[in-house]
Amino acid sequence: MAAGWLDALLESLAREFGDRPRTATLATIGRDGAPRARTVICRGIEPGGMQVFVSDARSEKNFELRKRAEAEVVYWLPSQRVQFRLKGVAAVGGAGDDMTRRVEVWRDLSDATRAMFFWPPPGNVRVEGMGEFPDRVGPEVEPPESFELIMFLPMSVERLDLNVHPHDRRRWHTSGDAAELRLNP
Amino acid sequence: MAAGWLDALLESLAREFGDRPRTATLATIGRDGAPRARTVICRGIEPGGMQVFVSDARSEKNFELRKRAEAEVVYWLPSQRVQFRLKGVAAVGGAGDDMTRRVEVWRDLSDATRAMFFWPPPGNVRVEGMGEFPDRVGPEVEPPESFELIMFLPMSVERLDLNVHPHDRRRWHTSGDAAELRLNP
Repeated sequence: MAAGWLDALLESLAREFGDRPRTATLATIGRDGAPRARTVICRGIEPGGMQVFVSDARSEKNFELRKRAEAEVVYWLPSQRVQFRLKGVAAVGGAGDDMTRRVEVWRDLSDATRAMFFWPPPGNVRVEGMGEFPDRVGPEVEPPESFELIMFLPMSVERLDLNVHPHDRRRWHTSGDAAELRLNP
Repeated sequence: MAAGWLDALLESLAREFGDRPRTATLATIGRDGAPRARTVICRGIEPGGMQVFVSDARSEKNFELRKRAEAEVVYWLPSQRVQFRLKGVAAVGGAGDDMTRRVEVWRDLSDATRAMFFWPPPGNVRVEGMGEFPDRVGPEVEPPESFELIMFLPMSVERLDLNVHPHDRRRWHTSGDAAELRLNP
């Protein structure tokens, strides 16, 4: 049985994004201990609530998450005026890990997204020339070492709904019975 | 003279949001050292690039920022497929500080937003009863102690544009000459 928070999240994401990319913000602890955050696309949500993202092994966020697994994922759904905050831990899975999920996700990406994993190291000084940046890579190509999954497991979830007075704020802990707690907004 | 990053940000925010609230994600370091993030509304950008947010003195983020000033602000502009990431430090200004800006920002808020600062402590177990949650407070009412400003000063700014091939990624350091550096996306 899916937890209340997961049903609510899935329903809101489907309504907000339809077939469009499901954007979230992923916050991590940077190399220097300061918070970092960036927009990511959720590639799937497992039945237990695990959130799947793809990311380049050479990117800062993968480095950060290998060092400090704590993370927060925020979904802001502007048309609904609803926010989900997911506090949890992330595992990074790469070529060295035995993950069938990694290959499945790779094959589901667009050609344009797959191509990005063959670009020069992200965040380095820009390499000139278009030849270094392929624009399409088909699903028949094996995923390169740069292709990694970020599997984010929420430990606590908060939902804030700005449509009612007063605003409705609820929290769930995902372990145990996942009972919901109503909070002051 | 405004820096290149600031002109670019202001132009993109105006185009994305018009007169609607300018939503961003604010990432901080939580009480337990884990990253926290939530959606906030930018209430103004000062000529030097300082970003102004309002927040409840009793909220977690104010507590967090008083303890650790490092923060990141992310603007994702979905209609433009452009992202700005601002890494910097935040100062929290409250009733004890001599800030004329605090009163100016208070008076510019909507009645509904001002009312929230008279609600019971955010994040506590929900207080029942509507009487505890006023829905309108006029600008003539003095700002309560719960009303604080978060003044966020960006130290480095990254802009990512997904509309071109390859994606265009630039970084500015806001001190010194604020020269821009092109990075691999």
